[in-house]
Amino acid sequence: MANLIARKMDPSAMNPTETLDPVDWSRVAELAHRMMDDAVEHVRTVRDRPVWRPMPEEVETAFHGAPPWSPMPLDEVYEIVRRTVLAYPMGNVHPRFWSWYMGAGNFTGALADFLAAVQGSNLGGGSHAAALVDQQVVGWLRDMIGLPPTASGTLVNGGSVANLVGLTVARNAMAGIDLREEGVGALERPLRFYASDQVHSCHRKAVETLGLGNRALRRIPTDAAFRIDLGALRTAVHEDREAGFQPACIIGTAGTVNTGSVDDLNALADFAAEEGMWFHVDGCIGALVSVAHDNAWRVKGIERADSVALDPHKWLHAPFEVGCVLVRDRKAHRQAFAVSPEYLKGTARGLASGEWLHEYGLQTSRGFGALKVWMALMEHGTAKFGRLIDQNIAQARHLADLIRDNVPLELMAEPELNIVCFRYAPAGLTEQELKALDTEIMIRLQETGVAALSDTVIGGQHCLRAAICNHRTRPEDLELLVAETLKLGSVLAGS
Amino acid sequence: MANLIARKMDPSAMNPTETLDPVDWSRVAELAHRMMDDAVEHVRTVRDRPVWRPMPEEVETAFHGAPPWSPMPLDEVYEIVRRTVLAYPMGNVHPRFWSWYMGAGNFTGALADFLAAVQGSNLGGGSHAAALVDQQVVGWLRDMIGLPPTASGTLVNGGSVANLVGLTVARNAMAGIDLREEGVGALERPLRFYASDQVHSCHRKAVETLGLGNRALRRIPTDAAFRIDLGALRTAVHEDREAGFQPACIIGTAGTVNTGSVDDLNALADFAAEEGMWFHVDGCIGALVSVAHDNAWRVKGIERADSVALDPHKWLHAPFEVGCVLVRDRKAHRQAFAVSPEYLKGTARGLASGEWLHEYGLQTSRGFGALKVWMALMEHGTAKFGRLIDQNIAQARHLADLIRDNVPLELMAEPELNIVCFRYAPAGLTEQELKALDTEIMIRLQETGVAALSDTVIGGQHCLRAAICNHRTRPEDLELLVAETLKLGSVLAGS
Ligand SMILES: Cc1ncc(COP(=O)(O)O)c(C=O)c1O
Ligand SMILES: Cc1ncc(COP(=O)(O)O)c(C=O)c1O
Repeated sequence: MANLIARKMDPSAMNPTETLDPVDWSRVAELAHRMMDDAVEHVRTVRDRPVWRPMPEEVETAFHGAPPWSPMPLDEVYEIVRRTVLAYPMGNVHPRFWSWYMGAGNFTGALADFLAAVQGSNLGGGSHAAALVDQQVVGWLRDMIGLPPTASGTLVNGGSVANLVGLTVARNAMAGIDLREEGVGALERPLRFYASDQVHSCHRKAVETLGLGNRALRRIPTDAAFRIDLGALRTAVHEDREAGFQPACIIGTAGTVNTGSVDDLNALADFAAEEGMWFHVDGCIGALVSVAHDNAWRVKGIERADSVALDPHKWLHAPFEVGCVLVRDRKAHRQAFAVSPEYLKGTARGLASGEWLHEYGLQTSRGFGALKVWMALMEHGTAKFGRLIDQNIAQARHLADLIRDNVPLELMAEPELNIVCFRYAPAGLTEQELKALDTEIMIRLQETGVAALSDTVIGGQHCLRAAICNHRTRPEDLELLVAETLKLGSVLAGS
Repeated sequence: MANLIARKMDPSAMNPTETLDPVDWSRVAELAHRMMDDAVEHVRTVRDRPVWRPMPEEVETAFHGAPPWSPMPLDEVYEIVRRTVLAYPMGNVHPRFWSWYMGAGNFTGALADFLAAVQGSNLGGGSHAAALVDQQVVGWLRDMIGLPPTASGTLVNGGSVANLVGLTVARNAMAGIDLREEGVGALERPLRFYASDQVHSCHRKAVETLGLGNRALRRIPTDAAFRIDLGALRTAVHEDREAGFQPACIIGTAGTVNTGSVDDLNALADFAAEEGMWFHVDGCIGALVSVAHDNAWRVKGIERADSVALDPHKWLHAPFEVGCVLVRDRKAHRQAFAVSPEYLKGTARGLASGEWLHEYGLQTSRGFGALKVWMALMEHGTAKFGRLIDQNIAQARHLADLIRDNVPLELMAEPELNIVCFRYAPAGLTEQELKALDTEIMIRLQETGVAALSDTVIGGQHCLRAAICNHRTRPEDLELLVAETLKLGSVLAGS
């Protein structure tokens, strides 16, 4: 107690206040300017570098040490980042990166992430300008997809969580009991969800997380174009209903991860309405095609969904992370997540007079991922994003044509959007041998820095896969891919 | 078909390639430099501005328009951001922001978010340097908390999801069935989780999301210091076991949101071991106290947890968003989330030769939030973060002393960490009147830009709450808070 009183009387008895702020702002400013120049140069010249390269031993082993006890000048810290992180990236900002499925980033988005962090607001709620931007971005995405103005939505960290949030609302809304309070165990009839066998793995994670179990997600066979088979869906739903399950939710996919196929969304919307089921659309790949002049017709029906997951860090090229879920019934959305603890009460005026944005998802604190979407949409306009989407889809057709024209390349599926599945398939090899050969081609393309593809299995056959979600790709990049694939294939196959 | 062939023969028949990259990089560079200067100035002078101020009508209404169809020059876009977002932030980077619970950001972290976005890597997995940094940060946090090197962990977007991931692993590991496959409905005995009545609301969201239901989370009463009552916990667990439930998981809190209280973690670890239960610690507020020289003893026992949620965007002051969950049993952690679809297979060499980091949580694509934690820890060292934590805890004691010394201020709980609950409580007012008075004081403090507090209810009584998680706070800021509260109180109470 004496100690405390001494402190009170003589505040200097407390150690002098320390802070994370720099002592010398001008030195930090200088370094920050250097980072800016390096960054501009990094992106401006990306085409001149390999799409990917393996890390040398000294980088591989550089990140194994214990937590740093002592300080290090920031310019030395940056020097390490420059020599490692900037020098050995994944490669997805490169024009010839077509692996898996992601966007290619954009410089405005990176600046936006910086500004968001500088001003620092927490998007959990409150009355401040960032919250308005966050809500406007949700509204814009809703308008772009065509859901009504009364629909709600929230930005999340990616498509997987967007789908999880949508399916949580579906589960709770369809349960017929107070599922939040009572849990899945209290359901009289187990809920069943339906999606095609091409559904993204995040839906498995979602139904498992939600306590429904993987078996609650029935995978329905697909047709030759990898779209859900409506007859099979109908049969499954009726079977389940008779067996005592409750068919609760149909998940349509607008752009499957393997082939970019789009389920017949209008037919699914009709069927869901008929059966009194929730209609969720995984539009992580394809939802935004709705703003693309030449191809919007492909995703028609998405505007009839009860919930939609979409992913600005894919075809809007926002730097990671930002996803979005939209929900037609705002009340159902909020009812699935709202909690109102005593330490998070609103007030009529002041800081806490804004909406509680955390009531629409899994987070409490939320970052300002909205700003990078907002700034890029303001800068370029939706019309340009639509043209870029059309451009990627046209490029996929161009690549498909090149593949068709060049034996022994084999086109594995007619591309609907921007994903092309193919393989180098000389005659006389077994499936096993083809898989080994194409895998080696894929790795060599990466190791030589020519192109980043990934691989998958469709219709039981292994193949290479180019997902052209990239605003830097040019036709000649695809021509190079084909030429190099043919060259590598012939060397490796010894033909 | 003719059309396609024409295209192939004459690539120029395709529209000229568009991109999001600027035509004139030098103009973007110039703007980027201006943003840097503005940002340095913004943070350097933050103390000279009000902590918060209400938005004028023209800002409130600025964000209601439809999606922008046409482009706008980036400097004009930035000008809007400067006049709105930067001018009307939440305020949490300000030295007198003590609302709710969050960090105060740091400039290095903002630069790191920029660099992360520029290089763009997807932390879902793959062989690239960002993945190594991500894993090193997890290892550092694990070492700082004291979990063994064999423990796993993953960075997520905040404490709420960190807790959700930890509780998902707990649920699945304790179920005794293949819960991922079969779901919660297949459990013979419903699982029960236990936490104190001070537990953060995200745990309610978590058990609801997991399909266990809110009623599966039993709230155990707390003692006078707001720590979980061990006797009551023991009784509840035994009761439930007899009633046919399966007591599965104890959630200890290291730093409660209302008062910063720390449960007796060693006693909880003992009891969980005795009962064969999972021991999860919500250390979002307090886990990192383990690196603070003077106060580390307060969170002893945390290193015995089966899983720990912590939050670098709180006491490490990383800009939003970054949380972390650690799990003692790496296999259980991975088994709760791993999916291995055909389009995400690893290869022995090349881009896909790294670990699949998405197998430890809910996401597929993951951002590079690790970099801001890594750079700040490298720059300052853990010792300094420890001192900053000790500093905030000492400041809370200083504030408590000031409150004790200044009637009619009333200290509502002895602060254990950095949270101080108090009220302006002149004699003769009802609880209702006191609540109205203190709420008005809180709002006026915000509106005048003096200080941002929030409010809560503890022991049934409404009070104001200062959560001093702020590396910019100085003792004189707290003295100003007390002086202004007294002044406002006396004006408002007319005394
Ligand atoms: C169809 C589909 N749905 C969901 C996802 C998951 O999105 P994210 O990686 O943003 O979590 C993806 C990712 O590629 C996808 O292709
Ligand atoms: C004790 C506790 N747990 C969890 C959380 C949630 O953390 P976040 O806001 O990062 O989701 C908080 C937030 O303040 C907290 O105080």
